[in-house]
Amino acid sequence: MTKLETTHQRILWRGLEIVSERGLVGVSLGGLADRSGMSKSGLFAHFRSKEELQVELLRAAEAALRREVVDPVVDVPEGLPRLRALVGRWLGWAARSGLPGGCPLYAAAFELDDAEEGPVRDFLMESKGEWSWMLEGLVRKAVELGHLGEDLDAVQFVWQLDGIYLSHHVSQRLMRDPEADARAHAAYETLIASSLPARTTQQERRP
Amino acid sequence: MTKLETTHQRILWRGLEIVSERGLVGVSLGGLADRSGMSKSGLFAHFRSKEELQVELLRAAEAALRREVVDPVVDVPEGLPRLRALVGRWLGWAARSGLPGGCPLYAAAFELDDAEEGPVRDFLMESKGEWSWMLEGLVRKAVELGHLGEDLDAVQFVWQLDGIYLSHHVSQRLMRDPEADARAHAAYETLIASSLPARTTQQERRP
Repeated sequence: MTKLETTHQRILWRGLEIVSERGLVGVSLGGLADRSGMSKSGLFAHFRSKEELQVELLRAAEAALRREVVDPVVDVPEGLPRLRALVGRWLGWAARSGLPGGCPLYAAAFELDDAEEGPVRDFLMESKGEWSWMLEGLVRKAVELGHLGEDLDAVQFVWQLDGIYLSHHVSQRLMRDPEADARAHAAYETLIASSLPARTTQQERRP
Repeated sequence: MTKLETTHQRILWRGLEIVSERGLVGVSLGGLADRSGMSKSGLFAHFRSKEELQVELLRAAEAALRREVVDPVVDVPEGLPRLRALVGRWLGWAARSGLPGGCPLYAAAFELDDAEEGPVRDFLMESKGEWSWMLEGLVRKAVELGHLGEDLDAVQFVWQLDGIYLSHHVSQRLMRDPEADARAHAAYETLIASSLPARTTQQERRP
């Protein structure tokens, strides 16, 4: 990376720290310049508008999510083992990647869900759509390999998985519940148990 | 209600409309005064500080939630029928109560989950704790009446129910998925099916 690119990445990470704790609304160009040790005009050389900065922040959040959650599981055997490994890394990923608060993408989603159309909201919808599509692919692969039941509705499965992720987010971040991880894993196991092939034996349950 | 009380309620409802769409951060004393057709000093006679206003807004959201979701089900037979009726009313309650966006309480929860301690965040934690406790009571009653299995973990059940609510919120508000209601109901039925007493017959499944 050139020095310019390194600076750009560093600014985005400082910005992501803010989004993680306080949402997109917490990021002002002036505040981000201060936090990055730059002048406001120096920052403007990197981002032409607040909207452009916000989309770049969300793109950086996506990249961090992939790095923390998706990349490390590519060597895990396909099907249920890979799905399980990915879900395990997804829960609480933001803290493990060094961010001070929760997932910046969901922080932004709850901020902008009722906002007017625009490039930032559009980016969030698309990003969430792609994430679900990736998860559905893992579920379909697990079905194909016989790890999950052949009549399983992958879209419904991922919809419920998203609920587990969100309930974990709330119980961990807002409620600071020490049981958050255990609750999420129990919920995941219930979801898996209700999605197994009809005649799976006990032994096959944890491939 | 006195005229003063009526005005107070009207201001809070205008404020809730904003929270529902844009979160607590969207509510400024000046903006709320404009929207309520009042002077800023007139508004200050009702709320001494922004923090006091925010707590009152959340208390008004709680009252609206109870009015829309809890009060109408008190005559429904206890146990699973009442739980089912309540969940049916909970999903998408904000829109039905006339608010323009999603649930103001969860909008605020995702805003303040990583905020510093303070009366507003404390109120949210307490409110969410009480809501879960109420739901757990309904689940325990359903267990007591034999509608749900006697070894059911009511806290876990409600944790998962919260996930269904949140996934519905995201799919309805952010993603505008026309299937959001159907997905939520399917998820709820799966949760119920996995929580029934061991030897429930098909006929007993929908009391």
